[in-house]
Formats: sequence, structure tokens, C-alpha cells
Amino acid sequence: MMSSKLKPITAPPSKEELSNRLDKVRILMEKENLDYYISFDPVNIYYLTNFAHYIHERPFILVITKKGAPKMVVPLLEKIHVETRARCDLEYVDYYEFPAPEGKNWYDYYHTLIEKSAKVGIESAMPMGIAEQTPGNKIVTDIIDEVRIIKSDYEIGRTVHACRVINKGMKVLLKICRPDSLEFAIYSEVSDAMQKKVIADIPTANLMVTNLKGAVWPPKISHDPHKIPTIFEPMEEGGPHVSIVGGQVDGYGVEIERTFFLGNVPENTKKPFEAMMEARALAYELIKPGVNMGEVDTKVRDFIADRGYGDKIIHRTGHGLGITGHEAPYIAEGYNRKFEPGMLVSIEPGIYIPGIGGFRHSDSVLITNEGCQKLTRAPEELEELTISI
Amino acid sequence: MMSSKLKPITAPPSKEELSNRLDKVRILMEKENLDYYISFDPVNIYYLTNFAHYIHERPFILVITKKGAPKMVVPLLEKIHVETRARCDLEYVDYYEFPAPEGKNWYDYYHTLIEKSAKVGIESAMPMGIAEQTPGNKIVTDIIDEVRIIKSDYEIGRTVHACRVINKGMKVLLKICRPDSLEFAIYSEVSDAMQKKVIADIPTANLMVTNLKGAVWPPKISHDPHKIPTIFEPMEEGGPHVSIVGGQVDGYGVEIERTFFLGNVPENTKKPFEAMMEARALAYELIKPGVNMGEVDTKVRDFIADRGYGDKIIHRTGHGLGITGHEAPYIAEGYNRKFEPGMLVSIEPGIYIPGIGGFRHSDSVLITNEGCQKLTRAPEELEELTISI
Repeated sequence: MMSSKLKPITAPPSKEELSNRLDKVRILMEKENLDYYISFDPVNIYYLTNFAHYIHERPFILVITKKGAPKMVVPLLEKIHVETRARCDLEYVDYYEFPAPEGKNWYDYYHTLIEKSAKVGIESAMPMGIAEQTPGNKIVTDIIDEVRIIKSDYEIGRTVHACRVINKGMKVLLKICRPDSLEFAIYSEVSDAMQKKVIADIPTANLMVTNLKGAVWPPKISHDPHKIPTIFEPMEEGGPHVSIVGGQVDGYGVEIERTFFLGNVPENTKKPFEAMMEARALAYELIKPGVNMGEVDTKVRDFIADRGYGDKIIHRTGHGLGITGHEAPYIAEGYNRKFEPGMLVSIEPGIYIPGIGGFRHSDSVLITNEGCQKLTRAPEELEELTISI
Repeated sequence: MMSSKLKPITAPPSKEELSNRLDKVRILMEKENLDYYISFDPVNIYYLTNFAHYIHERPFILVITKKGAPKMVVPLLEKIHVETRARCDLEYVDYYEFPAPEGKNWYDYYHTLIEKSAKVGIESAMPMGIAEQTPGNKIVTDIIDEVRIIKSDYEIGRTVHACRVINKGMKVLLKICRPDSLEFAIYSEVSDAMQKKVIADIPTANLMVTNLKGAVWPPKISHDPHKIPTIFEPMEEGGPHVSIVGGQVDGYGVEIERTFFLGNVPENTKKPFEAMMEARALAYELIKPGVNMGEVDTKVRDFIADRGYGDKIIHRTGHGLGITGHEAPYIAEGYNRKFEPGMLVSIEPGIYIPGIGGFRHSDSVLITNEGCQKLTRAPEELEELTISI
């Protein structure tokens, strides 16, 4: 593993950064012979424009032409909001309201932007209701999602900063979590600590894409990693507790997760913890440019199965990170793609045993020229993660 | 306006409540001759099952058949999570992972659930990537969204409770907001106060659908109602400040918004404030069962135009409330539907003048047999909303 010094970046994206992203999208449009590419997914629109929103009944649609500024269909109500946040050239096409009187609906304007004979790329995430109103010969192709997979130096810098924020959250979490602590107290203190760091570092952070959480799955529920704990869930002596600290920092998604114990390590948790740690070490050893991502997951799963926990695997080895905390590429059996420098992924093989608990560490990791480099930092070994009470 | 005493409800939905909702969906399926209805929208899935999630790369798909328990396609990882939260009968169809090896992907299982010759209803919100994998003769029709428009007594009770939570937030906001207060301080204190009430009232609240916010748009930005203020935005002497307090309370979305002044009311704000108040009074007067919703908006807009602010209207008179804080039905020009008892809407005509500010009150309102009834409560008149500093 390389250990080059990466610098955190907190500045908003430059116009050049955004136009480079658009150029990459246009290269793929040309490859697929597309006259237009339509983006409706808020994540992709944010990636290209720096304007964040969520889907609601009033549509926002980005129409990317072969040349010139993209056109953006926006509700009148939101036009100045978009203008304030977007950091690239855009041509605005604003509509009255949703719903609207005849002839003034969003689709009345949208229809005029695309020639009927054109070849039009659309996202697989595009809702049917928008696709039905999209003129032209439509092809589902996830071009922007594809461009997002390899990060620029700017994006890496933003992610390095985001990881520092969650490293702080993780540190606070391990410091305050004790038997009988309530979920709510941990969640509040950890989230607050991170939120404070974000606003100190980025006073103009966009709250729409800043969302930080820290929570612990106590042993009673740690075998069920996607069950959100209730607020009065108490921590317990022993373990495994599994913590999730992560979220978006002004638009950049990251995560750090640890399996830890309070006071003592129950005998029946030692073997699965060790198997998880070895599976994780295997993943780090295998992951480097040129290696097939799906095959890494297969090897890690096989290893865990060899240790006797084959039926205790419920998820892949990892997933991509970027603007969101969960996106392509995937370290998942059947995903036939090679690691490349500039990818950001989580590495987090897990073992889940009902009645005993869950075992998983996760880090946010950059694929480098030589291998991979963790951007998150926290204790990893069993001794460090057995907290005196 | 009726003023019957409505009781707040905090209990989770009974099996009967959920099966009544499903029955209503099936009545519409029969009307449209559908063999299956497919729900992918997390909001609709929550409505029918009480299981909340957000869309990510691993699909969750609810397949509603004419009879029997609906089938739910879920990632293996989430199966126990769904089982824990769902409060209706479901038949689970779990898949390996996303992505997955050949033959083990979500669509491999999904394909087997629907006959190729069947007539299949799908949501307009369904992403293209899911629609493409849906067998049968597909028709886009928003059946569940339609059923959601008229609320049951249970839903009204939950909304009454949610309104009490935000009433409290609004009260705290008006108490602490002073010139030079920072957005961040207001946001934290108001959100905390509401969060505390939620966990006191509903200790098992699902945090995935609990999300409370209170913020103020100071005069500098109150003309731009969808611009999220930055965290260091300071309040000012005078006004108009416009506050938004709302969000979801364990799955029920509501809002209360007020235009207020700190210390003094600038001369040039008096007329637009009065015009807004009169437009609002007109809306309350007009709104009752049998009246066309679009026509109310037209009349309210005409009234505001008569007062000289026709070009200062940037949104409709109101929108529906339910599981989300923004949904059908709409009080919007061109929306051709009549008010019915059991609808929940916001009433919030607004005037927005760059350089002066925004003018809008919003309340969460129930349509009753006789007219309508506000479920939110806070000061409304200019004198009460001119706060001594």
C-alpha cells in the first residue's frame, strides 16, 4: 500500500472542475452517438452543476446538448435557488408551477428542447412519468454514473476532508459509548461533533447535502446491519457492538465502521472477529488496479466460508463512494470490472450470526497506482477495540 | 369552519388499518383490470407495509396480486429488517446481493413473480431500469398515490399529533429568534425541542421517517423560499423573516410557516403583508368539499394580482400532506379536482418581492364535511408577529 500524503480540500468546485466533468460526459455521448443526454437524478445533476435538490412533484431536468451550456428545466419558484448554487453555465427554462394550466406545464417547455428524431440517452433511474414525456429515440444508458466512478484530484481532496470529519465522529463515539448508554445520547453527541467540524471548516456548507450520523448497533441487533436502532436502545456489557459513522459532508459521502466490545470479549465472539479481520486483510491484499472487482468478493467469501461462516455472509465486500455513500463500482461477486486508480470504495467484509452478533469494520479507501490507501482512521485490532468500562 | 375535537394518535398502524389500505388499492386495480400492481416508490411501500427505506442500488419491489399477501422482493441483507418493521402479511422473495452472480440477481427472482401475459400497473415514479425488467403488459397508473389522497381516521390522528410537535417547534422559534441570532442556533434549538417531544411521545419512532427542521429565512433571502439558508445566516432587525417548521413525525409530514418581524415593521412591508393575509383569508373562505381545487388557486392569484402583486407570485396556494410533506392533491391552477372531506393540505398563498422579502403563512389543514380545520396553531396577525427585541 502506498502512503502518499493527500491534502483535504474544502473549497467549492471551480468552473473548470465542472466543465471537465461535462466534457467526460460528452465524450461518452459521442461514443454512443447521442444527440442529447437527459439527467433527472438529483445526484447526477449535483455532480455536473453543484446544485442540490431532492425529487419531489416539481421536476428539475437537465438537458445536455452536444455543445454549449446545458439547459435546465426548473420550476419558476426554484430558479433563483438554482442560480445561487449552480457553478457552471446553464440556460434556464422555467415553468409556471406544478400542476399548471394547459400549455404551461413543465412538459410543454421540455418538449420543445429535444428534436423528435434525435437519439436521446436517459438514466436507468429516470421515472416512467418523465421518460414518457421525453421526445426522441430513447436509450437507457448511465453515462454520468459511469463518469463518476473515477475521481478527479479535487474529488479526492474533498473526500479526504470528509474522512477527517468522520474520523472525529468515530473518536468521540468510542470515547462516550459505555454499557447502558442510550442510542440517542451517542447519536446526538457524535453527530454534533461532526456537524461542528463541518461548519467550522466549511461555513457555507450546503445543508441539503450535509447529513452526518453516528450510531451503534448493540449486540442484541448487530447481526442485522440495516435495522436502524431505536432511540432508547441501550448499549450492553460485552459485544460485538457495531458502529456506523458516516454520511455526506457538503456533498461527499464517506463511512467508517467498527466492531467493538465494552469491558469484555465473550468467548464465542473471538473466532468470528478473527475470521472477519483475516477476510479484511485478504481484501486489502488483493485490491489493486487491474484486479477484477467481482473476483475479490468471491475470494473473500470463499475465505469466510472456509472459516465456517459461509451462511453468515449477507453482503458484498464493498461499494463505491462519491457524492453519495453507496454507488458504483461494487466489490461484489458477478461484477465484472477491474479496479482503477482514482476509484473510492468501502472495504467491509462482514459476518452476521443471530444470537451472537455482527462483525464488520468498514473504511473509505482510495485506489492508488500501487494498491489502495485508507482515508479513514480508527483503531482496528481487538485489544484496542475492547474498551475499559 | 368546524372546530371538532380531533384526538392525536401515536400508536403504530394496526394490521386492519394496513389491510384497509390494500383493499382500496385492489378496488382500483379491479377498475383498471390489472392482474398486478407493482410498487417501487418507498413512500407507497411504507404506506402499505409500515416498512420505510430509501432508494439505493439494491431494489425493494412490492408485487401486489389480486388476492393473498403481497410479495416483496428484498435483498437478503434487509430481510430481517423488513420483517421487523412491516406490520402486514408479506411473502418475502429475497435475493443474494447487488450486483450478483448470473442467475442470482434481483430480476431473476422478480421475473418469476409476474406472468408474461398479465396486465401490470406501475407507478409513474418507477425508474426505467426497474420498468425494463418488469414482465407483462405495463400501464403507468398511480393507484396507491390516488388512495393516499383521502385519509383514514387513523392517519388524521397521526397528523394531529405531528402538528402538535411542530406547534411546539414554532413556539420555541418565535421565542428565541432575535436580531443577530445565527441560523444554526435557531435550527438546533427548534429541531431539538421537536425531536425531544417525538421521542417522549413515541419511544419507538422510526428515525428513517422522522426528520424535523426549523429554520428562518431572514429578510435578505426571504424572497427566495426554496433557498436553504446557510448556517451562519444572521437574523436582522425588522423583517419580513419567514420561518419554516416541519418535517416528518414517525412517518407523518406536516408544516407550519410564519412571516414575522423583529422589533419593527418596515413601512414598505405593510401592504404586501396585508395582501397576503387577505389572500389567505379568501382561501380559507373558499375551501370546502365540492369546490374545484384549481379554481381556488386561480381566485387567490387573481386577488393578489388585483392588489398589485401579480408578478410576485411564484407558487400555488397549497399542496397535499400525508406520509410526505409535499404530495397530491394540489391547490393549483389547472388542477381539476374537487375538495373532499379527509384531504390534508397546506394553505399558503405567498408574495415574494426581491429587495423587500417574502410574505407567507402556511398551516396544515384538514378538509372536513363543512369546510376546513387548521391542525397547526401559532400567532397569525401582524401585531402578534412583531416581536419585541
